[in-house]
Amino acid sequence: MIVIDREKLASLPLLALAAPAIRDAYIAVTDGRANLPPVGYLPLAGRNADCHIKYGYIDGDQIFVVKIASGFYDNPAKGLPSSNGMMVAVSAETGDVVAVLDDKGSLTDLRTGIGGAVATMALWRSDARRVGIVGSGTQARMQVRALATLSDRVLHFAVWGRSPEKTAAVLADLADFDLSIEATTDLEMLCRQSDAIVTTTPSKEALIRSDWIAPGTHITAMGADAPGKQELDVALVGRADRLVVDHPEQCLDHGEFSAAARADLIDEGRCIALGAVLSGGAMGRRSDRDITIADLTGIATQDIAIARTALEALDLL
Amino acid sequence: MIVIDREKLASLPLLALAAPAIRDAYIAVTDGRANLPPVGYLPLAGRNADCHIKYGYIDGDQIFVVKIASGFYDNPAKGLPSSNGMMVAVSAETGDVVAVLDDKGSLTDLRTGIGGAVATMALWRSDARRVGIVGSGTQARMQVRALATLSDRVLHFAVWGRSPEKTAAVLADLADFDLSIEATTDLEMLCRQSDAIVTTTPSKEALIRSDWIAPGTHITAMGADAPGKQELDVALVGRADRLVVDHPEQCLDHGEFSAAARADLIDEGRCIALGAVLSGGAMGRRSDRDITIADLTGIATQDIAIARTALEALDLL
Repeated sequence: MIVIDREKLASLPLLALAAPAIRDAYIAVTDGRANLPPVGYLPLAGRNADCHIKYGYIDGDQIFVVKIASGFYDNPAKGLPSSNGMMVAVSAETGDVVAVLDDKGSLTDLRTGIGGAVATMALWRSDARRVGIVGSGTQARMQVRALATLSDRVLHFAVWGRSPEKTAAVLADLADFDLSIEATTDLEMLCRQSDAIVTTTPSKEALIRSDWIAPGTHITAMGADAPGKQELDVALVGRADRLVVDHPEQCLDHGEFSAAARADLIDEGRCIALGAVLSGGAMGRRSDRDITIADLTGIATQDIAIARTALEALDLL
Repeated sequence: MIVIDREKLASLPLLALAAPAIRDAYIAVTDGRANLPPVGYLPLAGRNADCHIKYGYIDGDQIFVVKIASGFYDNPAKGLPSSNGMMVAVSAETGDVVAVLDDKGSLTDLRTGIGGAVATMALWRSDARRVGIVGSGTQARMQVRALATLSDRVLHFAVWGRSPEKTAAVLADLADFDLSIEATTDLEMLCRQSDAIVTTTPSKEALIRSDWIAPGTHITAMGADAPGKQELDVALVGRADRLVVDHPEQCLDHGEFSAAARADLIDEGRCIALGAVLSGGAMGRRSDRDITIADLTGIATQDIAIARTALEALDLL
């Protein structure tokens, strides 16, 4: 059993390397190759903490992956990150543990960033150049890096946050990447000026109003991944021309689309699987005036994809 | 993150050290301290293999544990063991991974052995000395070792198997332990002569007939842990005076008691939780003529107990 630490994983160019596998991870959910049991959930009574256990197998793969992801919501007060995680890659041929990826959540950040970029690039207009990033946390940085790495367009990024200090920190962290990027505290202006918007906040109420969004805009909603979280006005979701999901049940149960579904503005029949759009089995954007929204909640096939890519890059598969 | 390998774990006297924690693991299930989500199950399509993911938390513990246990049923043809496994111990205070226990299933073997001995010693007659072991695999060895280690009685063991070679191998493997032990291929005689019987086979049909079992006998049924497995005649289960379970739902769904439940010979109302017997909350054996049967299917609190004990023995907790 090999242990690969976070630093070793950070040395690999995974944003670029893993994109084809992440694309395939979405397709595997729609073409029957993905074996995805329900996500395990362990609340830690009295601890303000919980743990999710995601696992799955893609038919024919050499490995399957079990991911342990914990959230300890009192950690920031102790100077520790609230999220932590690791993945175990197990041989699908013998059951031997191939490797423990002690990534402390960094592979989840990467696969989430790549997933957002894959969805955005599948659904934005062909002339989209101005990308608005809503939020100033890890995924704000990751979505910028993933789009800048994976798109061959010349992009201009604007990053919104309530705190000028936090958006300035985003720009400082991305200073090495030679990007066209600015920060703003005006969310309405960011929305009105963006061709594509990626939302990455843990908000529990709608941040983005429907009347701020022009026809032709694409939105990738990354933030809502648990009951009670919401970033978009339900009227905007109800009004959108194309609603795309990574996993219909998850998105309607606890993703961005759940609030609009509870308000009876949308139903599962309106949701298109991202994997079907990527494989060509379903149409994504149909015109330059479509408003498209992708709701991503995260699926275990993404974990498999990033783990497999890392192990291949290290010549372990 | 520390990795502890199977050899290091084998150097610890865990059979003796972990018994109090394993006793408490059963009690935790009955007194509300155990958080036990459903066991995760991942079948590997086309591989004749599967993986169980067991996890849980005992209120107040420093760690919680996620166990990955795989079964690769074509492995023996390749000269590999069919079972494999590892445990991840995670801090319940910060979410950090405390240790990966790369035990390859050995901790599961140990906790299962200790669990069987705890149940047997809670339910056998006060004068029970003759112990019959049914089966010649890992758990046959483990049940003998656990009882010999944990009981202060002078015991005589008899081991039954269909193959004289396999039972001879059991005796050879246990030769260092200075035991009173013999092997037999006559199951009826073993049953008639034993005060306590521990069944450890993967049988899919009843091996032990009701009329072989005298009043006063105790039986611990370890083998049946999945749908379709059965070691005891359903008439014997129906006739027993006391039915004890580690986990009522599991035992009636896929444990030894499931066949008798499906035949409407018993119901959940007749099942007594082992934890309640151990804590004194419920009565186990009531007389020297009671036939008592314990059906053990395995619970995640046992995994927590053995992992915690190992980490404490290594001064890691």
